[in-house]
Amino acid sequence: VERAEPAKNYAIARCLLGVTHVQECLPENLDLKKRFFQELSAKMETDTIITLASSTSNLTCSSWSQGLPENRRKQCLVAHAINPPHCIPLVEIVPSPWTCPETTTRVMALMRAVGQVPVLLKKEVIGFAVNRLQYALLEEAFSLVERGIMSPEDVDAVMSDGLGLRWSFLGPFETIDLNAPEGVAQYEKFYGQGMRSVLRDMKATRSDWTDPTIREIDAAMRRKYPVEAISAQRVRRDERLMALSLHKRQQQEQQQKSKL
Amino acid sequence: VERAEPAKNYAIARCLLGVTHVQECLPENLDLKKRFFQELSAKMETDTIITLASSTSNLTCSSWSQGLPENRRKQCLVAHAINPPHCIPLVEIVPSPWTCPETTTRVMALMRAVGQVPVLLKKEVIGFAVNRLQYALLEEAFSLVERGIMSPEDVDAVMSDGLGLRWSFLGPFETIDLNAPEGVAQYEKFYGQGMRSVLRDMKATRSDWTDPTIREIDAAMRRKYPVEAISAQRVRRDERLMALSLHKRQQQEQQQKSKL
Repeated sequence: VERAEPAKNYAIARCLLGVTHVQECLPENLDLKKRFFQELSAKMETDTIITLASSTSNLTCSSWSQGLPENRRKQCLVAHAINPPHCIPLVEIVPSPWTCPETTTRVMALMRAVGQVPVLLKKEVIGFAVNRLQYALLEEAFSLVERGIMSPEDVDAVMSDGLGLRWSFLGPFETIDLNAPEGVAQYEKFYGQGMRSVLRDMKATRSDWTDPTIREIDAAMRRKYPVEAISAQRVRRDERLMALSLHKRQQQEQQQKSKL
Repeated sequence: VERAEPAKNYAIARCLLGVTHVQECLPENLDLKKRFFQELSAKMETDTIITLASSTSNLTCSSWSQGLPENRRKQCLVAHAINPPHCIPLVEIVPSPWTCPETTTRVMALMRAVGQVPVLLKKEVIGFAVNRLQYALLEEAFSLVERGIMSPEDVDAVMSDGLGLRWSFLGPFETIDLNAPEGVAQYEKFYGQGMRSVLRDMKATRSDWTDPTIREIDAAMRRKYPVEAISAQRVRRDERLMALSLHKRQQQEQQQKSKL
């Protein structure tokens, strides 16, 4: 109930003094977000230059900002960070059709200034880019388990001891670009047909991750650590992510130096 | 021509002396592989205990071993490493229906003994696991560019500054397991419906990466480094992968110690 009544619990007008950016992090509830931004908008001075961002991972800016006054909704967008946001630099910036370009520019500059890496979605799509890419892979990962092709542990290893190593510093395009002597265009010539056959087979054989599959994956995870240990495991994940960030920065600096 | 006549260029019988494992790395040509294994099989002593592996990324063991004698084809399987194989530990082990369990066990033990991480495909599927997972993600990555939603550079950043960080030491399942207080089963309860909506939308909007898209991605890569620099860039990739492996080992040891 407290969470559902944000306006009553915070003196919004006072919070807005001197503020140039609001980052909303309420639960993923459309009505709640709508009401929050409406309250916020009502309390803002008419000439306040401020950017209004939601941390939502699945509610488009259009959906929660459409009812706002013209001059407020143009200041809104989605700025979606990845969990855990203090250890992962990426932030997806997803403006609505009525977000003004200055809002987008300002929020991207702000994110860069605080050390984040903003990426821009030029159109609104559900799942944005992070979850579209993650779910595309997860769908096949579930399918490999459901069809009895691979154990959950081995699917995880395919990533953590295989694909994930290159992807942690090269994107998917740069990875294939470096896998053909003349780059990605040649990669498509060499492997495009094979890739399309595999994708066709995947479409034809894809499963719907039923309860037994989820239980099988859950059981595999519980063999690694029990439910009670998840929060401790999450702390270890964050430590690893921070150490990895430091490692990556050192590597980049070193390779930059050796280039000069 | 030379490559197409392996048996004429190498004294196979002599090469086999004292050998317990053969790792074939010929080009991805079914006829070539068939002939190679036939030659090899003909030259092997009948009582030789040996495992015969192909490094192929897309030719199933069934396809190239089916014509071999019963007692030879049971010694065959696919052992597919990821490029660059000396920097990435993962090896996919893909037996055929007639591969005997001892062959699989021996090759997996051998891979572990040389520091690789073998994973097992319990059934033959095209693309195996690595490329099925990679292509699932690439398909949506191409689509995001083709539909004008995101630049190729930003798609790469979604991975290299976002998703790829967790995936470089957690698999896709462990990643979502740590994103719900009670693990993956709860994750599915919280996000399963949203995930399915996004997947439905992806299916409905998926594009077919036409030539202009490939050219756009290629142009983005060429802005990063010209074609002439690809091989130097590949050396840098390998250095990064080796440094990352070392970093991961140190982190694992450190977390192991702090657990004790």
